[in-house]
Amino acid sequence: MTKKNLQVCLSPALFDLYADRKSIVVVVDVLRATSTMCIAFEKGVKKMIPVSTVDQALEYKATNPDYILAAERNGAPVNGFDFGNSPQTYINSDMKGKTIVMTTTNGTKSINIAKKDHDVVIGSFLNLKALANWLIKQERDVLVFCAGWKDKFNLEDTLFAGAITELLDKSGLYNNSCDAAQASKTLWEKGRHDLFGFLENSSHRKRLEKLNIDSDIHFCLKQSKTTKIPILINDQLIALDED
Amino acid sequence: MTKKNLQVCLSPALFDLYADRKSIVVVVDVLRATSTMCIAFEKGVKKMIPVSTVDQALEYKATNPDYILAAERNGAPVNGFDFGNSPQTYINSDMKGKTIVMTTTNGTKSINIAKKDHDVVIGSFLNLKALANWLIKQERDVLVFCAGWKDKFNLEDTLFAGAITELLDKSGLYNNSCDAAQASKTLWEKGRHDLFGFLENSSHRKRLEKLNIDSDIHFCLKQSKTTKIPILINDQLIALDED
Repeated sequence: MTKKNLQVCLSPALFDLYADRKSIVVVVDVLRATSTMCIAFEKGVKKMIPVSTVDQALEYKATNPDYILAAERNGAPVNGFDFGNSPQTYINSDMKGKTIVMTTTNGTKSINIAKKDHDVVIGSFLNLKALANWLIKQERDVLVFCAGWKDKFNLEDTLFAGAITELLDKSGLYNNSCDAAQASKTLWEKGRHDLFGFLENSSHRKRLEKLNIDSDIHFCLKQSKTTKIPILINDQLIALDED
Repeated sequence: MTKKNLQVCLSPALFDLYADRKSIVVVVDVLRATSTMCIAFEKGVKKMIPVSTVDQALEYKATNPDYILAAERNGAPVNGFDFGNSPQTYINSDMKGKTIVMTTTNGTKSINIAKKDHDVVIGSFLNLKALANWLIKQERDVLVFCAGWKDKFNLEDTLFAGAITELLDKSGLYNNSCDAAQASKTLWEKGRHDLFGFLENSSHRKRLEKLNIDSDIHFCLKQSKTTKIPILINDQLIALDED
């Protein structure tokens, strides 16, 4: 069989260079949007609607009063919203059957960039193995899309890209000609045994330290805690279950 | 003393996010533009004029018939020009006192992006140590600017960014809050003992393999073979010598 392409895009500002209209795009924003999405579905959320702006989120709420609003900007919850993007919120709340409208600094923006021409699924360390298994079964090209921080490269999303590159590589299904995929995998091999320590000096850990949410970071770096794979269908996320 | 900023920008498409009008920008295009520039000055070239287009290069030649033209596109020399961007060309020619007008796919483009608001110097493995020493003496913020390949991330420029990050870090003068600098340094630590092997599957090595210029790659990965530091003054490169 012809090998499939595996690419990694390190910033939303570079997405057009990697977009090919045929790859499945894995959007990743480890701290914390896509981790939160994965755990929300694990906790029984039925549907998530990623929107780019706070205004769009409020419009949804106006016509659907039972929707739950989650909004984060610069790492903190937006005033007046039910939630920010802390994944642990969803563990402590009864979310069964709920619909969440969510907007975050980087994660939902990246979803909306990718969805124009591509099928989109959501990745995080929390659903790492299930996602890799599911991707391999699709036998399609894969583009891992790191949300970064305001278009800048970040370490944590790149580590995830490396982790999934490693798992996909093992299948023998993909070629390895993408420099960013190779770099990501090398970083993952170096950092995998102490992700929290590896991120000690990272810009986002420092950003979140100020917000006093170290426990969120520990949570988001746990691996393969759910088999849910959020997938975008008609602009809304629902979850596949890769048992 | 307040620590200085050290940043790494992994692609020309991201430059605006890192630009701050005050950093010294180190432009790097290891394979092969900036390696060639360093070795050209080592071999006695007096001046290099980096231009963005083949047309601009031809205009210079029209008014300055003694100028030497060097042009590369997609890894190969441009027809009708004296040279492409093979560094070894300059070793085998008598270049003493000459002026070279040069345009390349990525390197000269990056110089021209950076020069609008920043002081620009040229980096490559060939002038690594001299450049690091010189930068430390300036006591200014530093932005290492990887030329990449057509705006995509590439491994070889990132390895160089990691090498110089390591040397600057050792001075204790710089803070280490840039994720891309940390990632680059980790890649360098992994690849430093066999750069050629580390680049085995890189996109640009494969691109150059087809052009049969493996020896150029080996040459460009040699470290600290010159103390020349090309610096851009009034749109033209001249060389400082960091003895």
